[in-house]
Amino acid sequence: MSTTIDVPESSKVTKGKAVIVGPQRPGGWKKGVAIMDFILRLGAIAAALGAAATMGTSDQNLPFFTQFFQFEASYDSFTTFQFFVITMAIVGGYLVLSLPFSVIAIIRPHAVGPRLFLIILDTVFLTLATASGASAAAVVYLAHNGNQDSNWLAICNQFGDFCAQTSAAVVSSLSAVVIFVLLIVMSALAIGKP
Amino acid sequence: MSTTIDVPESSKVTKGKAVIVGPQRPGGWKKGVAIMDFILRLGAIAAALGAAATMGTSDQNLPFFTQFFQFEASYDSFTTFQFFVITMAIVGGYLVLSLPFSVIAIIRPHAVGPRLFLIILDTVFLTLATASGASAAAVVYLAHNGNQDSNWLAICNQFGDFCAQTSAAVVSSLSAVVIFVLLIVMSALAIGKP
Repeated sequence: MSTTIDVPESSKVTKGKAVIVGPQRPGGWKKGVAIMDFILRLGAIAAALGAAATMGTSDQNLPFFTQFFQFEASYDSFTTFQFFVITMAIVGGYLVLSLPFSVIAIIRPHAVGPRLFLIILDTVFLTLATASGASAAAVVYLAHNGNQDSNWLAICNQFGDFCAQTSAAVVSSLSAVVIFVLLIVMSALAIGKP
Repeated sequence: MSTTIDVPESSKVTKGKAVIVGPQRPGGWKKGVAIMDFILRLGAIAAALGAAATMGTSDQNLPFFTQFFQFEASYDSFTTFQFFVITMAIVGGYLVLSLPFSVIAIIRPHAVGPRLFLIILDTVFLTLATASGASAAAVVYLAHNGNQDSNWLAICNQFGDFCAQTSAAVVSSLSAVVIFVLLIVMSALAIGKP
């Protein structure tokens, strides 16, 4: 900086370089990353709450019943699916609450604090979302395929709609997981690069 | 440093401040974080490879068999457990390969590059480890408790040793997940704070 003040005749050259390489506005791309962060968060909210709602409304009665019990499958038949609904609702709630911090990152692209806060909480909720999505996926897989050795029969032959709905919920939750990974990588790059 | 040379009579005061507040060595704690990172990585390697080995050796034959088939349970009875063994071995392999980058972070505590590289890959492998640990946990839970509505019976009454071994593998994998979260949070703080 002091060289441009001391030698004003070379200031044009310095400006020309500044436009191409961009050292005088470092981190203009950080605002873009912050806006992308906000948009991805909206997508993750839709995915997480959609997964919770899809799983929470999964319920199928079969049109026949024996004298002992009626055949019914719903999400609260499986503890894993209950965990899934609760966890996905919590993740969706966290994502809504995290939007103001994302807005702060848009307004002040160079502030490290909000991004650091988001990266730490995102990591925790990524773990939560992955755990619930993967455990529900394992149960959905068993419902589709059964297991020979433990004599667990596939139930998707009878409960086709139930299986389709829970599978959709699992896919939706895993897309939320992918968005979380992107959010963390973007925040890390925005913090680390000048 | 230059002040201590120019004004030797106040050097004792400056040193006293440096020990308490530490402004003359900013980021001395970053070396500590990097060393902690290395130690935690060693713990995660033990947890991940231990989980893979425990799950991979789980195998139990019952001391009786019918004329149709012998009762046997091993990890490759369940697709989820096969996925678990493969994934945990991959995670362990990644952690071993990440050790040199952790060493670089110890030698050069202020370099952002290695930490950024580690934080991004750690996030990906955190997701992998969480997914395999949680899906195996869901199957272990079913093996312990069964499920009334789908008529899946608990198999842990017969295969007690098998269930104990797979449960231990799940616990080990989840401790690797906890270490991964700590590693990411520590790396983020080391990058973000001056």
